[in-house]
Parts: sequence; C-alpha cells; structure tokens
Amino acid sequence: MPLLKSLESAASGTATPLEKLLDEVPYNEQGLVAAIAQDATTNKVLMLGWMDKTAIKRTLDEGYACYYSRSRQTYWRKGETSGHVQQLVSMHFDCDGDAILLTVKQTGPACHTNRNSCFYLKVHDNQVWVE
Amino acid sequence: MPLLKSLESAASGTATPLEKLLDEVPYNEQGLVAAIAQDATTNKVLMLGWMDKTAIKRTLDEGYACYYSRSRQTYWRKGETSGHVQQLVSMHFDCDGDAILLTVKQTGPACHTNRNSCFYLKVHDNQVWVE
Repeated sequence: MPLLKSLESAASGTATPLEKLLDEVPYNEQGLVAAIAQDATTNKVLMLGWMDKTAIKRTLDEGYACYYSRSRQTYWRKGETSGHVQQLVSMHFDCDGDAILLTVKQTGPACHTNRNSCFYLKVHDNQVWVE
Repeated sequence: MPLLKSLESAASGTATPLEKLLDEVPYNEQGLVAAIAQDATTNKVLMLGWMDKTAIKRTLDEGYACYYSRSRQTYWRKGETSGHVQQLVSMHFDCDGDAILLTVKQTGPACHTNRNSCFYLKVHDNQVWVE
C-alpha cells in the first residue's frame, strides 16, 4: 500500500522516515507542493508559497522558511532581502501529501506590500475590498 | 496598470467589482487557484483545495465551500456526501490573486480520514509523525 494511504488509518504516534514521505509526495508538474504559512502567535494565515524537495529540506535544516519562486525560478529564503524572515515552529503535511502547513514566527510583515498578511483582499457583496 | 498591482498600494476601504478581479486572477494551466480553508472558530487550518472561477462563484452564491476536484475532474460541494459542510464566513484573495483564504464554520471533521484537519502529518526529527 502506498505510504500516504497507509498513514490515513495509522494510529496517533506512528512514525515514518521523512525521506520515504518526500519520495512519495505528489509534486506537481513543476516539482512543487503548496506551502501555507500561518503565524504561530496570532494564528493568522500569512501567505501561500511553493516548495520543492530541496526547499522543504532547506527549511527544516535552516529552521527558516525557504520557498521556490515560480516567477523567478529560484530558491527564495523568505526575508533574505527584506529581513522579514519566518522562523519555523512546526511543519505538517496533509493527508494526500501535496500541501504543507508551516507555523512560523514572522519577523515584520509577511507581505511585500508591508501588510501583515498577503490575504488583504476581502470579497463581499460582489466587490473586492482592500483591508 | 493591472488591477492587482494597483490594489497593492490602494488605501484601506478601496472597492473594486469582483468580476474585474476574477478576470485577472492568474489561474494555473488547469484554470485553478489554491483555496485554504481555516476554521473561523478555532483558527485551525483545515485543508487546501482548488477552485476555478465557477467554484469561487458557487461558493459565494451558495454560502458553502465548493471546490474543484482535480482527481475526479468535477465540482465538489464539500460535505455533499459526508454532511461535513463548510459554511462560508469570509473569503480573501492574496496580493497576487492566485490563492484564496476561506474562513468557514466546519460541520464535523474536515478530513476524509475523520480527523479535524487534513494536516495531521507532523515533521519532526527527520520523521513524519501521525498526530
């Protein structure tokens, strides 16, 4: 049985080598999975980025979020120019392995617009409102 | 200037017709954007799904999350078989328009494994632990 399928019914506390999971993650055609960053203090969802296997390992090894920039086609240590780094608190994969949830200690604003969160466009009444 | 770019520096309270934004969203090659569901009560991140323009409109019109299932290639009103529906509380787009954050009132568990959240695989010490 594929690993992710077997983990669906596994008991709490079951452990598996990370490398085995990383080999089975259904990366998209660009080799990426979606990574959500959530503020560990406020619980606010800050942004959604993308990671490949190298970015996942780099994030774990360095303890700071490192994404893969699809537009620039390069690794992107979040905050390396702005200083607005994301210190890793925890990392979870979802049931089908194609999404990651990072909880982070965010230094400064997460968004390049200097807003706390990238999700500042609220849909209401057939309009989009800047928060 | 493209709409999303102009909204980056727009003042809080600025409103734009939703239809204009939906025409400019950078959908992926499958016509989809990532949609994060967060529990409006607990702030827990529940799952990541996918939406196209129709799914976004259906979610807004019906007031319940409707995703597009990539594996089944069809619309998926979350909970239509399980009863574990997600009542929409708010919807936000991010700065570059290719990710959506839904806050929802979740009925029952969000995950098909009957766990509260799909993010139950915790990475720690080079292992993946079932929570």
